[in-house]
Amino acid sequence: MRAHSTVAPSLVPRTDPHAARRILESLTARPALAADVPDWLADHARRHTFRVERVPFEALDHWHFDAVTGNLRHRSGRFFTVEGLHVEAEGPPVAAPRTWRQPIIVQPEVGILGILAKEFDGVLHFLMQAKMEPGNPNLVQLSPTVQATRSNYSRVHAGAGVRYLEYFRSPGHNTVMVDVLQSEQGAWFYRKVNRNMIVETRDDVPLHEDFRWLTLAEIGALLRRDLVVNMDARTVLACAPLAGDESAALHRDADLMSWFVAERSGHRLVARLIPLADTTDWTRDDTTIRHVPDRHFQVVAVRVEAGSREAPRWTQPLLEPLDRGVVAFVMRRFSGVPHLLVTVRVEAGFLNTVELGPTVQCVPRDADGSGVLRSPFLDLVLHAPADRIRYSATHSEEGGRFLNAENRYLIVEADATEAPARPPAHHFWVTPGQLRSLVRHGNYVNMQARSLLAAINSGAVDLQN
Amino acid sequence: MRAHSTVAPSLVPRTDPHAARRILESLTARPALAADVPDWLADHARRHTFRVERVPFEALDHWHFDAVTGNLRHRSGRFFTVEGLHVEAEGPPVAAPRTWRQPIIVQPEVGILGILAKEFDGVLHFLMQAKMEPGNPNLVQLSPTVQATRSNYSRVHAGAGVRYLEYFRSPGHNTVMVDVLQSEQGAWFYRKVNRNMIVETRDDVPLHEDFRWLTLAEIGALLRRDLVVNMDARTVLACAPLAGDESAALHRDADLMSWFVAERSGHRLVARLIPLADTTDWTRDDTTIRHVPDRHFQVVAVRVEAGSREAPRWTQPLLEPLDRGVVAFVMRRFSGVPHLLVTVRVEAGFLNTVELGPTVQCVPRDADGSGVLRSPFLDLVLHAPADRIRYSATHSEEGGRFLNAENRYLIVEADATEAPARPPAHHFWVTPGQLRSLVRHGNYVNMQARSLLAAINSGAVDLQN
Repeated sequence: MRAHSTVAPSLVPRTDPHAARRILESLTARPALAADVPDWLADHARRHTFRVERVPFEALDHWHFDAVTGNLRHRSGRFFTVEGLHVEAEGPPVAAPRTWRQPIIVQPEVGILGILAKEFDGVLHFLMQAKMEPGNPNLVQLSPTVQATRSNYSRVHAGAGVRYLEYFRSPGHNTVMVDVLQSEQGAWFYRKVNRNMIVETRDDVPLHEDFRWLTLAEIGALLRRDLVVNMDARTVLACAPLAGDESAALHRDADLMSWFVAERSGHRLVARLIPLADTTDWTRDDTTIRHVPDRHFQVVAVRVEAGSREAPRWTQPLLEPLDRGVVAFVMRRFSGVPHLLVTVRVEAGFLNTVELGPTVQCVPRDADGSGVLRSPFLDLVLHAPADRIRYSATHSEEGGRFLNAENRYLIVEADATEAPARPPAHHFWVTPGQLRSLVRHGNYVNMQARSLLAAINSGAVDLQN
Repeated sequence: MRAHSTVAPSLVPRTDPHAARRILESLTARPALAADVPDWLADHARRHTFRVERVPFEALDHWHFDAVTGNLRHRSGRFFTVEGLHVEAEGPPVAAPRTWRQPIIVQPEVGILGILAKEFDGVLHFLMQAKMEPGNPNLVQLSPTVQATRSNYSRVHAGAGVRYLEYFRSPGHNTVMVDVLQSEQGAWFYRKVNRNMIVETRDDVPLHEDFRWLTLAEIGALLRRDLVVNMDARTVLACAPLAGDESAALHRDADLMSWFVAERSGHRLVARLIPLADTTDWTRDDTTIRHVPDRHFQVVAVRVEAGSREAPRWTQPLLEPLDRGVVAFVMRRFSGVPHLLVTVRVEAGFLNTVELGPTVQCVPRDADGSGVLRSPFLDLVLHAPADRIRYSATHSEEGGRFLNAENRYLIVEADATEAPARPPAHHFWVTPGQLRSLVRHGNYVNMQARSLLAAINSGAVDLQN
């Protein structure tokens, strides 16, 4: 080449060889306490005296049902809408090819779920927020540094700016550790994705009273408790660039990919938005949009209030599941290496037909009806003796959209009889490291599986021992 | 764990450390000749005396325009349909947010593009086929071992079975080297994906006369020629698991991902299928569906005949672009390491809004009109002096769907003035290794960029010297 630049830009290593080690150190550097965090969260709730109450739809401010479509929407045209979805699907969890209609949340904006990281005394800490979400059973949980839709941060709501947002919108001299678009619950959201980000800074960061710096081990200790770490924090932690530490596994990475590609190619999912008014089998009264056979979920409205002056007040719709679900990985160790049993999930709102889910993901009450395939591992998971349960905690899903959406999250160790090395169709054994390689990219691993991966990544469960 | 399996399954290395080396050896082990391949392809054409002629739509067998929608479809309901698409897009190549309607090919089936690999004398060879496709200007080109839609191999056409298909449908004891779902042209196909596979076998493989075993270097030598290696072969070769050999680059992998995620989040593409009859600005006569301002492409019908007894005969629609396009990477070396300038492409048929494309991808005649952004690098590419052109060849796109769809493919070396280290918006410098990491997964790198990557992977161009 003839014309070399006079100022040659310098190259950088493509990958940071220390990133995984530094995250690992945050997991092991010191005893995980953070025992006071639940009190701190409770204090936050008390200080603001948050109240969430159900109201009829007509009490919603700025929300209305469209006269033509029946869709529930905000007058600004932003935030989200509740519309109808017409679905043709085949493959798990659907027992046979099936068509149905349902309400679904449509929110085309890409949100940012970002955790800011910074070293203190040589150990990476993560900036976590005490955040109230109206759908959380206990209202205030530990959330990422930033959890914001474009509508939030471009201030459709009159409200305060989103703290620390600029670290994620314009990382500049700060270091992006991970940035990946991940799906949300495909049964409830239409093609929703969020950016899952961890950004490290060396800046002095002013600490607002609603925020705390925690090590990964401390967050892991909190993930052992019920209803402390919110869904948005869990999905970001699932994406933490920890090393894929196992060099050997039951299956080569290429065979895992090939199995997944064959599954994605072999399933069919055709979903199209329809007017909410056209969702036959669903009915609307003053306070709910309900499934006539009374399964799945209902759409309701809430008013959010607070005693403190600075806290915002608003009304909004929420989607409320009718029952608690169970989400579980069955695990085994092969030649001492832990493996998780993933399964293929076809969820109506997925952009790309299928993603990998945990071994079991269902509402037990619905497990034997409505055309849904019963997991061959459901009984194993529901009736596992205590000494087989490696992890058990109740977590709630996105409290900004879902009301009291609780799942019991489990990791259950099985033996060769219960969970053979050659599992049933649409199941596959993967190592946590293989799952971590997939989660570097979007549309491979669903939200529920990522919640369990977050527990593994943060040491809430130790699969090695 | 208490209940260990009595027969412990053994683990395997997650990745084959030798795969990349063995592919590299296939690139360098012996001088690349394959000089007789073009003659062999021409012989194949002569032997069967293929003829393709344009016919009016009414001469199509088993194809008709739907009475209600005007969609062009096969009476079996399979193969593909030509439907209408309503598009709202913003971002490159669209200059400003814009809405339009167009015909588009809809083919929801996932096809298999598979190349069988096998070692001869210690060197990996790839089984390539002499295949006639009616849209290729020279009809017969070099294609993958298997190039089949589900309609093909489940025999909607009465015809012979697809040779070597079972290596890809059921690899069994054979080794999958790569298996990934990749998009096709988003301007002409609605959300079409194919499995791009390379499977290695140690079996004795009976060699049919339409097939040849070639080293990667031999295929590379053929990729320097015009119209020899077909599109399906190129996309599979782009996915070959070569090593990402550069450990340093202008940008960290995490920053490349973060840039891409920000671009994907920041663009908007809403495309919905509409009846072909509703594509205003398009008109249909006996032989064509044309754009009224006479741009872009037209839909036509052809009859395929052959003199030889064994060759099939059929009729089908094809999409015919009105002009030849140019597809080019601008490249530079930074600290001696080659980098390619990728850009963000919003194509109407993409599943996931944007993919990365080459620096330039356009029909020069259309470059200054129809609301399309003119690439700041178009003149550089069109007027590059010979000593800057590192690669130049004319290739055609999928000859089973497109008629005479030719592009000039170029790699042009630029200097710091022409292509600064900080490029214009929506452009980013990546190494070939970084592009290869992305192409391990679908919906990152578009077909046109993959065609150029195939030339790099197969040594048709050497960017190092």
